[in-house]
Amino acid sequence: MRQLTADDIEALAVGAWILGSGGGGSPYHGLLNLRRLYRDGARASLMAPEELADGDDVAVVSMMGAPLVMQERLVDSRQIARAVEAMQDHLGRKFRAVMAIEIGGGNGMQPLMAAVHLGIPVVDADAMGRAYPEAQMTSFAVAGLTPAPLTSVDPRGTEAIISRAASWKWMERASRKLCTEFGSIAATCKAPRTGADVKRWGIPHTTSQAIRLGEAVRAARRRHEDPIDAILHAERGKRLFSGKISAVERRTTEGFLRGRTTVQGLGDDRNSQAEIEFQNEWLVLWRDGVPIASTPDLICLIDNDSGEAIGSETIRYGQRVTVIALPSPAIFLTPAGLDHVGPRAFGYDFDFRSVFSA
Amino acid sequence: MRQLTADDIEALAVGAWILGSGGGGSPYHGLLNLRRLYRDGARASLMAPEELADGDDVAVVSMMGAPLVMQERLVDSRQIARAVEAMQDHLGRKFRAVMAIEIGGGNGMQPLMAAVHLGIPVVDADAMGRAYPEAQMTSFAVAGLTPAPLTSVDPRGTEAIISRAASWKWMERASRKLCTEFGSIAATCKAPRTGADVKRWGIPHTTSQAIRLGEAVRAARRRHEDPIDAILHAERGKRLFSGKISAVERRTTEGFLRGRTTVQGLGDDRNSQAEIEFQNEWLVLWRDGVPIASTPDLICLIDNDSGEAIGSETIRYGQRVTVIALPSPAIFLTPAGLDHVGPRAFGYDFDFRSVFSA
Repeated sequence: MRQLTADDIEALAVGAWILGSGGGGSPYHGLLNLRRLYRDGARASLMAPEELADGDDVAVVSMMGAPLVMQERLVDSRQIARAVEAMQDHLGRKFRAVMAIEIGGGNGMQPLMAAVHLGIPVVDADAMGRAYPEAQMTSFAVAGLTPAPLTSVDPRGTEAIISRAASWKWMERASRKLCTEFGSIAATCKAPRTGADVKRWGIPHTTSQAIRLGEAVRAARRRHEDPIDAILHAERGKRLFSGKISAVERRTTEGFLRGRTTVQGLGDDRNSQAEIEFQNEWLVLWRDGVPIASTPDLICLIDNDSGEAIGSETIRYGQRVTVIALPSPAIFLTPAGLDHVGPRAFGYDFDFRSVFSA
Repeated sequence: MRQLTADDIEALAVGAWILGSGGGGSPYHGLLNLRRLYRDGARASLMAPEELADGDDVAVVSMMGAPLVMQERLVDSRQIARAVEAMQDHLGRKFRAVMAIEIGGGNGMQPLMAAVHLGIPVVDADAMGRAYPEAQMTSFAVAGLTPAPLTSVDPRGTEAIISRAASWKWMERASRKLCTEFGSIAATCKAPRTGADVKRWGIPHTTSQAIRLGEAVRAARRRHEDPIDAILHAERGKRLFSGKISAVERRTTEGFLRGRTTVQGLGDDRNSQAEIEFQNEWLVLWRDGVPIASTPDLICLIDNDSGEAIGSETIRYGQRVTVIALPSPAIFLTPAGLDHVGPRAFGYDFDFRSVFSA
């Protein structure tokens, strides 16, 4: 267990945004909330999953919805804690700790806000090692753990509990409809996990990983080195394409942000064009019409100058970007994992081939 | 407290369908379920609201959704009991009795099924004295009682609790979205009421009223008398229009059945045409383009020969019908009541004028 410093929070925001693979929502508002909480003397503590007792109850949180809406509606930091409290009320017991369902984007910051308000530590783990758009796209779902219960909280005062779900897809459907009605954004506390579950099925040490990654980028900036090299080195990633954003099509639909963006190649890629489709997260990268990367590999768009990640809600015409891939947690590369998050799970008619298996 | 007989159940189905004012869903499937339960020896008991102690907990149930879907999906009689059990689990205590949110249509039968499976009595009351399509259209809502919690159950095994609602409209919105996702039909247990609430704000004795009304129609049939006269006499109703259905437009949308039907006048009305718009229930009756009746007065379409009510999901071209009005419970005629269920609450730009005030 260690106390996270103000510098850790800054680095976490940078690293989580990269691991978001375009989704998870911009961490910026969460960062502002945490800076204020830290200025007021609050501190979040990070505990290793190994420190959990098997029987400990762990709350698993996220802001659910369409990232574009998360940009538009400022969220009180207490909202995510309220989702945890609603779950505590439902279960009739308190949580030992809180963790992220996804380390990616703003959702990597949410457990810290919940932890500060509830006075419990954050577990250094998540269930994706990145961000994914749907409820059944977690290591817990791949492992066959139960999808229910889930609490969903709207800031105007409406709260719901999905107390049973026939399947992970039904949990996704029911909770997504509520989220859509709440304005395509809801604070959620997912099905609680035991310490044993987290140790066995969580993706371990991803908060530390995001902090280290963010530190690497910030250090490169300070030294005027290439921040993209720093990312690739820190995460053993691969450079896929460089160019200029020439088109963005984006629509907020069914509680998601969907669309595609086109990148006109520059430099070595100047005779090529890339297209990237997204459902909150970047899903597939085509180079001149050929799919060359797809989920579960992390596709990340990085601003060439700052090394800052770019999300599906913030990408805009004219940006100079580098598309990179980072390796996926192993569980999503198994046949069961690919059933949940491979290209076919998103409706694409081709099999997954990792850019790292070549 | 008295035990309802098999004959009472038959009469209830006839009477509740008339009071449904086109909605509440056909009672036929509920009647089949109850006939079977009665053949197996089950009996439902009816208790007067006056028999409730102030502190008794009363479950308030309904099948929520679009009546057309209720015709298509047969429902296990245990489903409505399951919604009550989910509420008991949520509250951590058992109910003393169960009542209908609306006496109209199949929803007048649902408390009997719940009662039989749970071994508790049915309260002789509801919160509408008819049927209405939305959650905030009840005497409890007009009285300003709390809209939450609500449980919603899907037969495939997904269950949800709206544990808090910012307003009645938010309860309607959140629960409607769940219902829509469940296939535009869900078994629901509405916000529990105390015995004191039911005695003060319930519409009393509406189960007995529906049974008496059904008995009157059945007696008229046996005696080859006009069943419509029997209805008008039993309920102090008013004959509004007679004719033949010449058009039906119907669409299942947003968890409701909406549309309009046209009646070509016959007999005294042969030079006129009527139109009736519906959202589950009949809302407004126009005669030659002039609105002559509207909610909260009960508009009921009755088959000329059988005296059987016709619902928005069963009405069809060629039927010979009589449109009648029955008086509304007094609470809906107050300014607060009209805010909830008057024509403007359904988007019509005219004030309510009762056919009984002329």
